[in-house]
Formats: sequence, C-alpha cells, structure tokens
Amino acid sequence: MDIVNRFSENPLIKPEDVKPSREDLIVECVFNPGVFEYKGFVGLLCRVAERPPQKKDYLTIPVMNPFHHEIEFLEFSYKDPLLDYDDPRKFRYGNKGYLTTLSHLRLAWSEDGINFKIDEKPTIKGWTTYETFGVEDCRITRIFDEYYLTYTAVSENGVCVGFISTMDWKNFKRYPVMFPPHNKDCVLFPEKINGKYYALHRPSGIMLGGNFIWISSSPDLIHWGNHSVLIRTRENMWDNERIGACGVPIKTDKGWLVIYHGADYTSKYCVGAMLLDYENPEKVISRCSEPFMEPREEYEKEGFFGNVVFTNGHLVKGDELIIYYGAADKYVCGAKIKISNILSTLK
Amino acid sequence: MDIVNRFSENPLIKPEDVKPSREDLIVECVFNPGVFEYKGFVGLLCRVAERPPQKKDYLTIPVMNPFHHEIEFLEFSYKDPLLDYDDPRKFRYGNKGYLTTLSHLRLAWSEDGINFKIDEKPTIKGWTTYETFGVEDCRITRIFDEYYLTYTAVSENGVCVGFISTMDWKNFKRYPVMFPPHNKDCVLFPEKINGKYYALHRPSGIMLGGNFIWISSSPDLIHWGNHSVLIRTRENMWDNERIGACGVPIKTDKGWLVIYHGADYTSKYCVGAMLLDYENPEKVISRCSEPFMEPREEYEKEGFFGNVVFTNGHLVKGDELIIYYGAADKYVCGAKIKISNILSTLK
Repeated sequence: MDIVNRFSENPLIKPEDVKPSREDLIVECVFNPGVFEYKGFVGLLCRVAERPPQKKDYLTIPVMNPFHHEIEFLEFSYKDPLLDYDDPRKFRYGNKGYLTTLSHLRLAWSEDGINFKIDEKPTIKGWTTYETFGVEDCRITRIFDEYYLTYTAVSENGVCVGFISTMDWKNFKRYPVMFPPHNKDCVLFPEKINGKYYALHRPSGIMLGGNFIWISSSPDLIHWGNHSVLIRTRENMWDNERIGACGVPIKTDKGWLVIYHGADYTSKYCVGAMLLDYENPEKVISRCSEPFMEPREEYEKEGFFGNVVFTNGHLVKGDELIIYYGAADKYVCGAKIKISNILSTLK
Repeated sequence: MDIVNRFSENPLIKPEDVKPSREDLIVECVFNPGVFEYKGFVGLLCRVAERPPQKKDYLTIPVMNPFHHEIEFLEFSYKDPLLDYDDPRKFRYGNKGYLTTLSHLRLAWSEDGINFKIDEKPTIKGWTTYETFGVEDCRITRIFDEYYLTYTAVSENGVCVGFISTMDWKNFKRYPVMFPPHNKDCVLFPEKINGKYYALHRPSGIMLGGNFIWISSSPDLIHWGNHSVLIRTRENMWDNERIGACGVPIKTDKGWLVIYHGADYTSKYCVGAMLLDYENPEKVISRCSEPFMEPREEYEKEGFFGNVVFTNGHLVKGDELIIYYGAADKYVCGAKIKISNILSTLK
C-alpha cells in the first residue's frame, strides 16, 4: 500500500549537489534528513556520506581520528581472507566491524520546502570517541525555542545515541551519550507528558530479543529510565526484521501519531504508523497492518542501498504531513500525505 | 596466574542441596550468588537454574508465563532442522533465541560464611514480561540500610538489567528496567560520588563495538545518563572476548578497586581487577595484565558449562576479600585473597 504524494521534483537533493568536505573525498549519499523550521525557512539536517575514490583491489574507508579530529584512511585488500564484505554499507575485518562511508550532518535551507540549497561545509561532524565512524540519521525535536538533536553515533565503541542542542543553528551544545549501544532511531516527544520527557528509541537484542521500539522517560533529557517495550517486529509482515521511530510524534485528537519504519528480512524499508495514548504514551492504541509508503520509484529502488524509503523528519501543516525522506540511501526526497489518511489506516 | 585461596569445603552449595521450585523440575545449577551481610549472617542470593527431566529426542525447556506467572514447558525435537543447538546454556529455534534452563534467585544463609543453608523456596522469580526466561546473576549493593539488587532479566524482549530493593530480605520493591537490551553485569557503587550515583554495566555491540564495561551516573538510581566506555576487551589477552563488572566496587586508599570478569574466545572465564579514580570513577588508573583467578579445580573445569570462575559478590574484612563465585556454571564456591595482593597486580 502506498498512499503518499511524492514531489514531482524528487530527488530534491542528490550527491552531485553536495560539495565534499575535503577535496580527496567523494559524496556518495545525501539522505535521511532531520527536519525543522527556523525564521521562515525549512531546514534539513542531511546525512552526507563520503569516502575516498576507490583503488582497484582495495576497499578504502575514511575514519575520524578522535584526538586531532581529522579524517584518516584505512585500506583493506579484497584478497585478504579476513575481509568479509557483502553489504555496500558495512563490512567485517577479522572480529572488527567497519562502515564503508563516513557520515556527517549538513544543513540545507529552503523557502518553499522544495528547492533546497545545501551548505558548502559540514554542520556537525563526528568529534568524540563515540563518533569516529560518523554521525547519522538525526531527529530534531523543538521544545520551546530549543532544538534537540538525537542522532546515531558510530564508532569502535558501538552504535549509540548522541545528543546535541541548539537555539540558532550556529552554536551547538554537546551532551554525553544518551543511550549506550546498541541503540539508534531515537526521537524525543515535543513536550513533557505528566511532567516527564519521553523518548522513543531502538535498542537491539543479541540472540534474544530483537530490533524493537522502546519508550523511556526522563526528568531532564539527560538521565533516562522507566524503559519499556512499545512495539515489536511482527512475523510474516512487512515489519518482521526491524522497526524504528521516524520523526517527532504528532499530537492529534486521537492520541500521539507515531510514524515508524519497518524493514523485512530482505532489508526493504517501508513506512507505517501507530497511535499512542495521549496521556500515557507507553500505551499503544493501534498499529497499522500495512505500511502507508513503500519503495516504488526508480530513485527509491536503485541507489547506494536500494529498496529503501526512510524518513526521520517531517513538517505538520494542519492536516497535511510533509515527509522528507532518504531514498535508496542516496537521495533526499519529499512527499505529502493527509494525517487523516494515515489515521484511517489505524483501526 | 591464580593467587586466591579456595575454601577446602568447596563446592559450598551443589545442585543436589537445592529443593526444586516445583516437583516436576530438576535443579541443574546453583551458582553466581550476590553477597551481603544482614543481622550477623552472611547471605547469598544464588542463581538457581532448573528444567524438567529431558525426554529422549526432545529438548524441553521451562518458561515463565507473564500473565498468570506460572511455568510452562516448550518442546523442541532434536530432529527439527530449525533447532540450532550447540551450547548447553542456550539455543536458537528459527529466528528466536531461548535458554535451556529457567533461573530464579534464592537466599542461602550462613553464620560462618562457609556452611550455608539454602531456602526451600525461590526468593525472587521472573515475574514481568522482561523476565519470562528468568532472572540471573544478581549484584547486591548496600547504600545505608537499603539493599539494591541489579540483576539480568531475560525474555523474548532481550537481555536487560532489572532492579529491586529491599531493607529486610522479606519485602521487595520492584522498579522498571534499569538498562534496556542488550545489557547485563550491572553493579552500583556503594555511595554517591560528587553527589551522583554511579553504575558499571555491560551493553553489547552488534557488528560494531563489543562487550565492554561502561559507566553511567544517576541522580536517583532510576534515571541514568552520562554513559561512557570504561574499559574494553583486549586482543591477544585473557579478556579478549567479553568483560563485565563483578561485585561492588571496593573503596581503597588507592582508589576504587573493581573486580571484573573476562572471557576469551574459548569462553574461559577468569577474574581480574582495575583501579578507578576515587573522585572520578570514570577515570581508569590501572588495569591488571593477568587475571588473579582462573579455572583450576575439577569443580571449576567440569560442570554445566566448564572452565568458568564467575563472581558477582564478595565481602570485605579489612585487607581480606572473601569471594563467593560460581564454578563451571554449576556450583557455589568460596575463596579468600588479600586486597593488597590484588592491588599489587595493578601497576
């Protein structure tokens, strides 16, 4: 099922529109933007994935050195039996894991929400020892005048949730790791509920458990507790392998509307929804049986990693939801859908 | 290296000393006790692992039903190609993971610290939807008159850290999940440091990261933040596969002495130590190069899962550390070592 209206201008931002952060790097992907409005502009905080030109016989990857904060290259021979490489996004070498690209976050601005101009330089680069393999897939929640950025921090220490705030998109305040490994897809609710902040996040199990959406609460956005499972993957359905929250939960008169992504065993990523109780967001009122958006267009089916629509940001305009999304892990795209139409998929 | 003095009375508690929690169950293991003192007695909160008698051709396991809180049995045919079983402790069936036994926690009491009498009934059983596969490996930290129990909660929702407190060992207060999956080996520091509570815990990475010890802080023991990696596994050493904190950190004049376990790629579990800064426990002052305790005795080498010494509790008597530990995942044992001797392994 696919009931969204894609922008005819898609893709809105392509890798060739983005200036590399260094002359010796190539932008392979610009995707999965966080979304916000600021001083009348639509802002996207895009994930930009780079790597150096690839030599014959070698896989070369960039990593950030956490001491002098510069990018260094690592080379792996394809003939090396320790190299285990069958996914364009990641690989193993011996008992260590690596990513093929290094991601940073970069702002793009638009007056009309369709034509974007992306900054010439990175906005947020990996900096700490938790970000040597990059920063990815930022969710942006505005609470009063402050924007809170929850993003995936990747390093040899694992995949965890990083946290940054800003009021002016020029000065950024960094906080410690919000959730330890293995955790990602974290988004904050836009207001306190019964005096507490709430977050959705996606810890992963090993052998036991799975890739489920959990909900937690906090008195101060720094310390989190009261962790509980919100929804799990479902066998024989579109979301049977992994699920994760998309953009900021949307307040409706039926409850909190949460857009979430689901992937199946083939790593096809689709978008669905669930509804949480307005007073107690730990309670699921309903959940879609089918996604409302699936990979359909050429630019969603073919790319850096095909068959993916992945959104982590949207804007709400009355009943209209404007979704910005990553297509095939390569492009930034946009689409519109009526919130009432999403709610009608939730019985 | 092994510099501990084992009790000649070892094993102190054996499976045959423990009455099953139901007539149709067999106690396979009694091990990994949390340790405390209460009203002049030494208390052990032992992990007791049970399962029903095994039928020919079938693997039968007990699981706790979270709705009526009774144990139910699941049966798997050894001929079923979906069964993937090569570890006595756990197995996979299709894409789901299971444990071969169901653990509860049970008190044992002693006047002399050597001769223990174990209760006839479980003290703490799996109860919530996070504990359907059992509760395991409890650490006990006394802060003023309250005992705080941090333990491993296992279920289809994953492996996470559960939290219970008691003042009298009769009434127990349950709290929500302390750390979401995949996390275990959590122990609280015995006092606030610079106004904050601290915990050591062991989140695990997937493909990236590993099984490292992290440290976090909290204003209230419920909400945790400021997560950072304390120590990681070390290649080509005894602790190259996974590490985790043992009992409560010990205050010494050199800093916080932390006993930790390390396992290598063969799953041989040994015990080592590190020293943390007294004022700032996020700072590692030193770490042993060799373990101070290794599987050596017959009862440590052969059991439910051999080649394991695993401690999650101890008592401090001046310079003497009395370690209670699980041997070969089957027995409760005891040993003594001088704290000054452990400190001398830390340069």
